[in-house]
Amino acid sequence: MPRSTSGWYGLRMRLDTARTLDDGLTERRFTLDVDGATVPGILWTPAGASESAPAPLILLGHPGGLDAMSPRLAGRARRSARDGFATAALELPGSGERARLEEVDAARADLRAALAAGEPVPDDVVDRLVLPLVDRSVPEHRGALDALGALPEVGGPAGYSGGIVAIGVRLALVEPRIAALGLFAGSFLPGTTVDEARRLTVPVHVLLQWDDEGNDRQASLDLFDAIGSPEKTLQANLGGHRGVPAFAGEDAARFFARHLGGRPG
Amino acid sequence: MPRSTSGWYGLRMRLDTARTLDDGLTERRFTLDVDGATVPGILWTPAGASESAPAPLILLGHPGGLDAMSPRLAGRARRSARDGFATAALELPGSGERARLEEVDAARADLRAALAAGEPVPDDVVDRLVLPLVDRSVPEHRGALDALGALPEVGGPAGYSGGIVAIGVRLALVEPRIAALGLFAGSFLPGTTVDEARRLTVPVHVLLQWDDEGNDRQASLDLFDAIGSPEKTLQANLGGHRGVPAFAGEDAARFFARHLGGRPG
Repeated sequence: MPRSTSGWYGLRMRLDTARTLDDGLTERRFTLDVDGATVPGILWTPAGASESAPAPLILLGHPGGLDAMSPRLAGRARRSARDGFATAALELPGSGERARLEEVDAARADLRAALAAGEPVPDDVVDRLVLPLVDRSVPEHRGALDALGALPEVGGPAGYSGGIVAIGVRLALVEPRIAALGLFAGSFLPGTTVDEARRLTVPVHVLLQWDDEGNDRQASLDLFDAIGSPEKTLQANLGGHRGVPAFAGEDAARFFARHLGGRPG
Repeated sequence: MPRSTSGWYGLRMRLDTARTLDDGLTERRFTLDVDGATVPGILWTPAGASESAPAPLILLGHPGGLDAMSPRLAGRARRSARDGFATAALELPGSGERARLEEVDAARADLRAALAAGEPVPDDVVDRLVLPLVDRSVPEHRGALDALGALPEVGGPAGYSGGIVAIGVRLALVEPRIAALGLFAGSFLPGTTVDEARRLTVPVHVLLQWDDEGNDRQASLDLFDAIGSPEKTLQANLGGHRGVPAFAGEDAARFFARHLGGRPG
């Protein structure tokens, strides 16, 4: 199948026309139908991925707003492509042009009120903010694995990389195709997520920005402690949320190359 | 100067005959005279180190007993040699065939009594156990940099890697030739060391075994938090004191290669 295929692929996904970026990276927008929801997404595939040499897929977690995030996501895609990985990102439920989620918007308003008042964020606000996204987004990510994994140039084990932590943990727990989980600590953690982390078995690499202004460091350390996987690594670096040093990205890349069988750059 | 040089080198060091290990690694015992003390040590140099291509030196920290530790140290030396580094280890004050240090032996007895009784180790016991080693060993490590750095096949910036953490912190603080500090968390930390860590400026890589049976995890996290250097990384992995995974050794090796200019393997 030619790389520029567009149109409906099977019953679930419409692939837009391919756009070739620098380094031979191919970017394609797609739309996925899952459980009645229409989910926009972007797929990046590395130069050389083909039916005879399919690229393992890493799902890129992000805090939502696919269009706004797309330049940073494309940067992560470019880095992963150097190791031979395909990557994809989905629009989160309630973000971008998707239908708003009233309960999540209400929880976000409560969150902002608590932060503005300098008060601790109540557990139920975190639950109402994050768990609906997890419940809706995890099946959508599984649908993306079905649809993108059916492309001839995508194959092999898959990974999840980034935030939202709660989505990555749930996805790795329920989806056997996820063979490696990279978490970017820094999002609000429901107690449910910490409980689910205890049951994880796949290798986990946690990246923590030590002085992340939006991050509860102790909560991240507690999450790492809870993770039940026999291989888990925490890498903490000095700096704020956007200050992840280049070498930390390289170390995370090697983690995925070790476990997903990419070709390390 | 041939690699097999032995005899007194300058006024401070006697180099024994070289022994070639596998991979072309050269091992040489030496004896250093520093401030009236006679300090045994081992130097490892990689194949290809020469006057025209001198190898940067990493001092290998270890908990003492050079002969007992030498197989594990040779393993670390072999790994570092792959990146083009020379390595050296010194017998600690009071260890091996060196004169016992009565105050340290007394503190060790107090430590064991506290541990046997299941009581917390008093701060003054930690101070009496560790600080005399720091005060004596740091000048000896500086002497080793003088003497080994004068060898034609050794040159460039230097590093310190391993425990005892308190020795590494003090050495990096007072010795400008130390350009990168790798710490293996897990030794008792005097309050003095945490205070000194605040004044560090060199890049620091801290390796922490999350379930180290002999390690106070919170003390290690507090130490990492205190480190004042603009570049600092904590890497925590699942497992006990001797269970450092191979990839963690590789990441630490890349840290030194980045900062000391070795040739990454």
